[in-house]
Amino acid sequence: MREVAVIGVGMTKWGELWEKSLRQVFVETALLALDDAGVDKIDSLIVGSMSSGLFVGQEHLASLLADYLGQVPVPAARVESACASGGLALRTGFIEVASGMSDIVLVSGVEKMTDVSGHEATYALGTAADQEYECYHGITFPGLYALIARAHMEKYGTTREQLAMVAVKNHHNGSMNPLAQYPFKITVDSVLNSVLVADPLRVLDCSPITDGAAAIILCPVDLAKKMKNPVVKIIGSGQATDSIALSSRKDITWIESTFQAAKKAYAMAGKKPEDIDVIEVHDCFTIAEICVIEALGLVEKGKGGEATEKGLTSLQGRIPVNTSGGLKAKGHPVGATGVAQAIEVVKQLREEAGPRQIKDAKVGLTQNMGGSGGSSIVHVFERG
Amino acid sequence: MREVAVIGVGMTKWGELWEKSLRQVFVETALLALDDAGVDKIDSLIVGSMSSGLFVGQEHLASLLADYLGQVPVPAARVESACASGGLALRTGFIEVASGMSDIVLVSGVEKMTDVSGHEATYALGTAADQEYECYHGITFPGLYALIARAHMEKYGTTREQLAMVAVKNHHNGSMNPLAQYPFKITVDSVLNSVLVADPLRVLDCSPITDGAAAIILCPVDLAKKMKNPVVKIIGSGQATDSIALSSRKDITWIESTFQAAKKAYAMAGKKPEDIDVIEVHDCFTIAEICVIEALGLVEKGKGGEATEKGLTSLQGRIPVNTSGGLKAKGHPVGATGVAQAIEVVKQLREEAGPRQIKDAKVGLTQNMGGSGGSSIVHVFERG
Repeated sequence: MREVAVIGVGMTKWGELWEKSLRQVFVETALLALDDAGVDKIDSLIVGSMSSGLFVGQEHLASLLADYLGQVPVPAARVESACASGGLALRTGFIEVASGMSDIVLVSGVEKMTDVSGHEATYALGTAADQEYECYHGITFPGLYALIARAHMEKYGTTREQLAMVAVKNHHNGSMNPLAQYPFKITVDSVLNSVLVADPLRVLDCSPITDGAAAIILCPVDLAKKMKNPVVKIIGSGQATDSIALSSRKDITWIESTFQAAKKAYAMAGKKPEDIDVIEVHDCFTIAEICVIEALGLVEKGKGGEATEKGLTSLQGRIPVNTSGGLKAKGHPVGATGVAQAIEVVKQLREEAGPRQIKDAKVGLTQNMGGSGGSSIVHVFERG
Repeated sequence: MREVAVIGVGMTKWGELWEKSLRQVFVETALLALDDAGVDKIDSLIVGSMSSGLFVGQEHLASLLADYLGQVPVPAARVESACASGGLALRTGFIEVASGMSDIVLVSGVEKMTDVSGHEATYALGTAADQEYECYHGITFPGLYALIARAHMEKYGTTREQLAMVAVKNHHNGSMNPLAQYPFKITVDSVLNSVLVADPLRVLDCSPITDGAAAIILCPVDLAKKMKNPVVKIIGSGQATDSIALSSRKDITWIESTFQAAKKAYAMAGKKPEDIDVIEVHDCFTIAEICVIEALGLVEKGKGGEATEKGLTSLQGRIPVNTSGGLKAKGHPVGATGVAQAIEVVKQLREEAGPRQIKDAKVGLTQNMGGSGGSSIVHVFERG
């Protein structure tokens, strides 16, 4: 397998982009990535999107986007693994470059979620759960994560305040990210007093509904060394599945798919959790970040809440998590999230993260998750 | 890149499978493929599905299917390129094995289309066209292909009867395929007297709405040589895009994406059109087969209708096309079609095609197409 590097990244401001169509949001972002890489032609396009069919009535998405980017007749593929579709796009592009099939691959993610009603968006997001065993009985994603949160609190003594501290930290980081949907700070009190969505989760525990896209350009490392940007290598890629229905799992507080994906990614990269300098994880709800840092081996099982309270995951902590603001503050256009996570890590490793820069960051990790953990994708990056 | 082979195939009878859910249809097929290959564990699962979101309200499809197949925690990816999703799954699996990332990959396609109303199915299929420039104005897929048919008739003198002869030939072949949805013969008269759908296309010019799945197992050729089945190599893979809106094309009678994909696949395989012994093409409508055999270079531009009339594409002809019955008779569960095409070619190259066997078939080709040609995927296979 050839070594693979990221040579360009592109992202525009996320939010409720009612004035733009899905193809516009994608093209603006992709052009930024091409410009950052200093290339104008690609060999292949991969796009992660969870449900362009339900959100905007458009399948056959990759061909459409290849056309609107002026890249026809390049091969173009859409990939889907619910909210991990962006991470899957990255992995698919990584394999394509590593295989030798293509040299310059545009990896992107996009979701346009606000063109439908809140009810329709909740239905579309629900298709990431098991329709026959979960959704048909009325459960939604806040409900599923509320079950996980309650179980974690019962089993490990995680507190309601610790959940809130995840959101407070991520909004603090996001306040320094001009592309974030909600770039403002919040407090533990404001989380605890926000509207109850699914007990114990309140609205400020939840990532928002977002329109947005993200794009990166991959190529072989040998070629990347001739490009204008500092080389950032992808040195590990791991992907794993679990039952998507919570009722089929042994322990709903433990994200086994993340543990399995991380094990593979660490092994391929030759790194351990303590080697990682900067981390982006899938905080779709505050409890998710707590479970994920445990499954990644960054803290002991059951200690995710305590670690957050002690500040270990803050910008100044031992293991800075979600320096971008995470899904919570940056927004969560589901198919784009996994690609945006990679962009944040690349910016950190290139030392371009501005006021949220982690000093001397050399190794970074992204963890992107589908549904309530039915799929996880982990990548490890290293400054070349 | 490592050489890749097909070591197992599985398919069940296609049709209106109201008594089975999507996951059941998939699992039955996947188990047959695993059994045919003589393996019980896989390293990765790829599933092609056009719109499981719109058809059955289920995204996050690959993880769900990995679980129901008892293969958790393997990596699982869903890929989508409208009606070419199955072909894209094959290409994605091919690249994954070729790269060295995985050894045993299950490539599958599935679509459950009859759980919604005819109106809803027409809407879902329409999402393969350009929503903003085509569907919002009321056009459907029979309408788009009717435009292509009328243009081909005007430009090249293709006759209404020649269109019908495509359907007659494919139903003749399909009558020998016990897994086909419509395994019966039809006549030119029955096509010409069937209900008008979109002038000049009648209902017997159209492939049906189908439930079904198909699965194949890939591995490196070195490993395939130790397995029980005759080795069938994948020696060429080409993929290309075009504008998905017909109005953006220079000549709607010419499928440029198929031409471009075939050019790449022939080059990788080191083969020419005249080297191919057996061919499966995307006859979603009768006119499609006529356009596709031209774009594949099997006949001259404009001569697809005449070639069909002369019997060149029949079982006994120089270039047998759609020996399986094609989409027309076998059925067209959109995401599964591209994988089923590969199964027919593998069966022909293994000499397991029964009464529809092409004698001494050594090299085969599949062509799978998204929408009205916005994407095409071509593979070339060779008996090892």
